[in-house]
Amino acid sequence: MPADAPPASETITAAVLVIGDEILSGRTKDKNIGWIADHCTAIGIQLREVRIVPDIEDEIIVAVNALRARHTYVFTTGGIGPTHDDITADSIAKAFGVGIDLDQRALDLLIPYYEASGREITPGRLRMARIPFGAELIENKVSVAPGFMLGNVVTMAGVPSIMQAMLEAVTPRLETGKRMLSVAIDLNHPEGSIADTFGAHQKLYPDVAMGSYPSQRDGKPVTQLVLRSTDQVRLDEAEAGLRAKLADVGYL
Amino acid sequence: MPADAPPASETITAAVLVIGDEILSGRTKDKNIGWIADHCTAIGIQLREVRIVPDIEDEIIVAVNALRARHTYVFTTGGIGPTHDDITADSIAKAFGVGIDLDQRALDLLIPYYEASGREITPGRLRMARIPFGAELIENKVSVAPGFMLGNVVTMAGVPSIMQAMLEAVTPRLETGKRMLSVAIDLNHPEGSIADTFGAHQKLYPDVAMGSYPSQRDGKPVTQLVLRSTDQVRLDEAEAGLRAKLADVGYL
Repeated sequence: MPADAPPASETITAAVLVIGDEILSGRTKDKNIGWIADHCTAIGIQLREVRIVPDIEDEIIVAVNALRARHTYVFTTGGIGPTHDDITADSIAKAFGVGIDLDQRALDLLIPYYEASGREITPGRLRMARIPFGAELIENKVSVAPGFMLGNVVTMAGVPSIMQAMLEAVTPRLETGKRMLSVAIDLNHPEGSIADTFGAHQKLYPDVAMGSYPSQRDGKPVTQLVLRSTDQVRLDEAEAGLRAKLADVGYL
Repeated sequence: MPADAPPASETITAAVLVIGDEILSGRTKDKNIGWIADHCTAIGIQLREVRIVPDIEDEIIVAVNALRARHTYVFTTGGIGPTHDDITADSIAKAFGVGIDLDQRALDLLIPYYEASGREITPGRLRMARIPFGAELIENKVSVAPGFMLGNVVTMAGVPSIMQAMLEAVTPRLETGKRMLSVAIDLNHPEGSIADTFGAHQKLYPDVAMGSYPSQRDGKPVTQLVLRSTDQVRLDEAEAGLRAKLADVGYL
């Protein structure tokens, strides 16, 4: 665990910081937030906040510093490639107030890879070996150029396949907490019909988060009620009680 | 234009605030950010920032107040339904320091709709007529319950079809600026190969934003270079110059 990460506790929280003009312009549709959210839920990290910022150094620095102070981990995506608009590594270094330079460990990965593939070792490609001082590298089994972890900030590529490989590579190094458990109840009714019953039940179980998600099926309004808790016993109790109440009013 | 919106200028900026535990848990994959981004780009509003926060009043208030101070408009999605976890309208009212109550205009829409569809008018359903004082309603042609605009904050539903209908309904009321124009150049080469040429070209046109987006096609690395500006003449110049340089080095 990084030295300056928050102290261990039962609840491990995270934020995602997506860096990239292309997401904000609409040109690229983000696929990383949902993937990271699923991954965090699966391993017992609670994703609490997401921000998307443009390729502007000051914006990245402010967001990184706000998020790393509030959460156990910050996962950043995007901006670690070879071109001039890839400014994430330098911005993270500035956010932490540390230096950045070509990293011998990264060069030892990249140079043999470029030599073997016959690609020229350009200044642009060498940019991908710039790693903030004190960071640990994160393996990239897709295209070699590594991500890195500095303090509690995990910096990954924006290309989804590479981001996923990096997140899987770094996961064994992450502290995880109790897994958030959930149960869903599907109803063939609009959510307005059950809102009062559901709200009253939430008051009985303030420790079990209850959400209602409306959608349409075959043109008719349907609702999924989701109950979430890290405590299986409380979750089971809350579910059984809710099912009984819904049956009472004829909705189950 | 709302009274407390920033003064008119050529550059109109916006932020999106997505409100919902279900996005952060991974249960629901957001489809609104990309749609709003495309819409903003099309109408001449520059989306500059996105945040996703949980269904927690204090988090919503802090985010709304941070974003509305920085941008011409804030678009919120989610949390305006009939159930207890729908706390957006109350949170927006608190963020602005105004009251909130059942709104006669909203009741005049909702009550006839429920009566005609044979649905009971429950306390939950009436929650959807709670509108902050001073807000203008936004039409919902999908399911009637309205969104609203208070100051420079546009509050919409989370269900994508309803959000889209609301955003289209409110668009004629929004001030828009110069449209961001863009041009893309596709290359059958990895971005590392053109990084230096591209970076040098960006320095010549600091007013034209240039981004490089790598991906794979048929297992081979390809790159799309995107140039963006509100000035067609400068964009054309920058594109022509870049195409000439790429041709010189054999990449076009």
